[in-house]
Amino acid sequence: LADLRLDAGRAIADLRELDRLTGGPEGARRVAWGEEWQAARDFLGRRLAELGIEPERDEAGNLWARLEGREREAVAVGSHLDSVPGGGWLDGALGVMAALELLRTLAAGGDAPARSVVLVDWADEEGVRFGRSLFGSSAAAGTLDPAELRGISAPDGRPAEEVLAAVGVDLERAPEAAGRLEGLAAYLELHIEQGPVLESEGLPAAAVAGTAGVERHRLVFEGQAAHAGTTPMEMRHDAGLAAAETALALEPIARSHGGVATTGRLALTPGIPTAVAGRAELMADLRHPEAGALASMLAEAHEAAVRAAKGRGCSLRRERAWSIEPLAFDPGLVELARRAVVEVGGRPEPLVSGALHDAAEVSRSVPTAMVFCSSTGGLSHTREEDTPEPDLERALEAFGRLAIRVVGGGR
Amino acid sequence: LADLRLDAGRAIADLRELDRLTGGPEGARRVAWGEEWQAARDFLGRRLAELGIEPERDEAGNLWARLEGREREAVAVGSHLDSVPGGGWLDGALGVMAALELLRTLAAGGDAPARSVVLVDWADEEGVRFGRSLFGSSAAAGTLDPAELRGISAPDGRPAEEVLAAVGVDLERAPEAAGRLEGLAAYLELHIEQGPVLESEGLPAAAVAGTAGVERHRLVFEGQAAHAGTTPMEMRHDAGLAAAETALALEPIARSHGGVATTGRLALTPGIPTAVAGRAELMADLRHPEAGALASMLAEAHEAAVRAAKGRGCSLRRERAWSIEPLAFDPGLVELARRAVVEVGGRPEPLVSGALHDAAEVSRSVPTAMVFCSSTGGLSHTREEDTPEPDLERALEAFGRLAIRVVGGGR
Repeated sequence: LADLRLDAGRAIADLRELDRLTGGPEGARRVAWGEEWQAARDFLGRRLAELGIEPERDEAGNLWARLEGREREAVAVGSHLDSVPGGGWLDGALGVMAALELLRTLAAGGDAPARSVVLVDWADEEGVRFGRSLFGSSAAAGTLDPAELRGISAPDGRPAEEVLAAVGVDLERAPEAAGRLEGLAAYLELHIEQGPVLESEGLPAAAVAGTAGVERHRLVFEGQAAHAGTTPMEMRHDAGLAAAETALALEPIARSHGGVATTGRLALTPGIPTAVAGRAELMADLRHPEAGALASMLAEAHEAAVRAAKGRGCSLRRERAWSIEPLAFDPGLVELARRAVVEVGGRPEPLVSGALHDAAEVSRSVPTAMVFCSSTGGLSHTREEDTPEPDLERALEAFGRLAIRVVGGGR
Repeated sequence: LADLRLDAGRAIADLRELDRLTGGPEGARRVAWGEEWQAARDFLGRRLAELGIEPERDEAGNLWARLEGREREAVAVGSHLDSVPGGGWLDGALGVMAALELLRTLAAGGDAPARSVVLVDWADEEGVRFGRSLFGSSAAAGTLDPAELRGISAPDGRPAEEVLAAVGVDLERAPEAAGRLEGLAAYLELHIEQGPVLESEGLPAAAVAGTAGVERHRLVFEGQAAHAGTTPMEMRHDAGLAAAETALALEPIARSHGGVATTGRLALTPGIPTAVAGRAELMADLRHPEAGALASMLAEAHEAAVRAAKGRGCSLRRERAWSIEPLAFDPGLVELARRAVVEVGGRPEPLVSGALHDAAEVSRSVPTAMVFCSSTGGLSHTREEDTPEPDLERALEAFGRLAIRVVGGGR
């Protein structure tokens, strides 16, 4: 088994064929629950059929394909086929096609592997229609409450229950997918970095030690709308400037803790050129791999917002929009991933992912590790998303070495 | 003639009746060219009929009502009956009802006044439907180009030509209203301040020396949209933060010159919590009574924007959205207005209006002055707009003294 190696060229050819079928000049169109997503799964199904494997779907719409080993205990490998509209060819698809290539390699290896191997294609990682990311993996992890989606409508007006029912998924029963994680010895996922770190370091790949925690807060400043021409500067209560000050204050807070802070959404009211903003709603997205540092960032951010509001005679309302704690992957598996990555010339130290992945949910109950490959320009969720082919090859090689060792009983 | 005095209580009663007819719990509804605006004009027409005066409409939809004096030369007095939706009871209406009260007082005075007096109700001062303020007065002043409005649609989709034609106004012929300003000896307008200065000084009224110049510029910052989780702080090109820095930098620039700067509109793209803003469009509205100081503010604002863009590796595109030079009213008339205001306990020094008024357009060719009364809380363009009745009375008294002196030949 130790001599087996993934055929990176074959995996990349599958990715290009998938892109031909479900992508195009405007980017990938594999939005979860839609026709193109189904077409992607049909393509995967045809490839699995060549190996004599029939995939099954669980209660949350996740697709599972099992290659029996000598042991009942199984290693899961996978990612997600769904994409954002106009997305890239690699986000999610890379991990699924790498898993397919692993099954193909093991199946062709002659002897059955020690542990069984299951490919998993998680349903609706992106949360495009209903704003709920990691749908399938959180159902499997036991953290999805169907009430979160009940009555939520897609942009076309169709409620979640109806969209899911149309493809045979009963929202209320989705949590029953949790049974699928029982008896899994490990979960491994290959994904693109979606950020610029590896490219800037000139490295093809990295092991991933876990996912950062996220604190996403809505900060609502209320001042006094006033006429742009008649209100002297010293008599203003400009909620927009209070929000601007807060946004700028988050930057040094994030830097000093080694985290990130983003203020990509700011809405001013009345929002016209001739009126001082009486109301400003700023979304602050704070991320850090360590819970303590994240809590400090959040406390300092709140202090900065209070100070900015007070300095302008504005009131401040704060509410948590969403949060998730930092999730560390399995140290032993991360070390195995790191070694495999270093063997192909990758990063000596694991990265922490600032983006969320299905692996984060799975890691709550199954020993988990991830491998990242570089992202050209750090871009993702756009048709420009890409990875240099040599980096793809080395990342597939590292992922293959890791997976084959774990399937062989490593760790 | 010098013994005549306006009946402030009667003018205020007319304003309350107008508010009863065309206002309500949600505020004034006299949007130009609409039914309620027409209802307000009908009310004015009934009051004028009591004086035996039949108003005329010019090519731009302005309404003129003439009380003949012994001389052909005329003094114009007025303001605008149109309002923003949900506006206040005094913005514009005060000046028209003050003009009506002047005609009523002069007509009841027995002897014909020296100069003729014309009441004018300017059409579409607010520019609600088509975003073009001072429509009627700029047509009269010769600064309206029909091309500005041709093909521009109201929010309900109806083009300007059609809306105007429905009330009998031919857009192409609107500039012919310019003939109405010929032979006018003076133009006088009473208006609410729409700002907090008089209230903060505890004063009821002020003469107005002119209107501030306005430079309204669109600043478009282009950085790089990026994932909120995967993009380290030091690798970002955050267009939103470049715009925030610029907005904050305008504040000390305005203060140091004694002007005002407002950034009430800021649009981020993609505008979602999980992405660094790749694009930010900031509107900067700069105002100052002196052209030189306004030019300095503009130059410093541009420098600040360039610096903010450069500091974050963003590009900057700047375009002028609109501008108007500072317009000084007639010094002799302003001094007469100041004296009348001081006689009723008003402000010893004239104010410069930061808001625009029909008077600014008229002042290009006719000697002009204005009187302001206080605005409660500095609020306008809202149903909360108000002025304490004693301040209204004193402002009407000052306006009456000024107008009667000018009509009598003063200036």
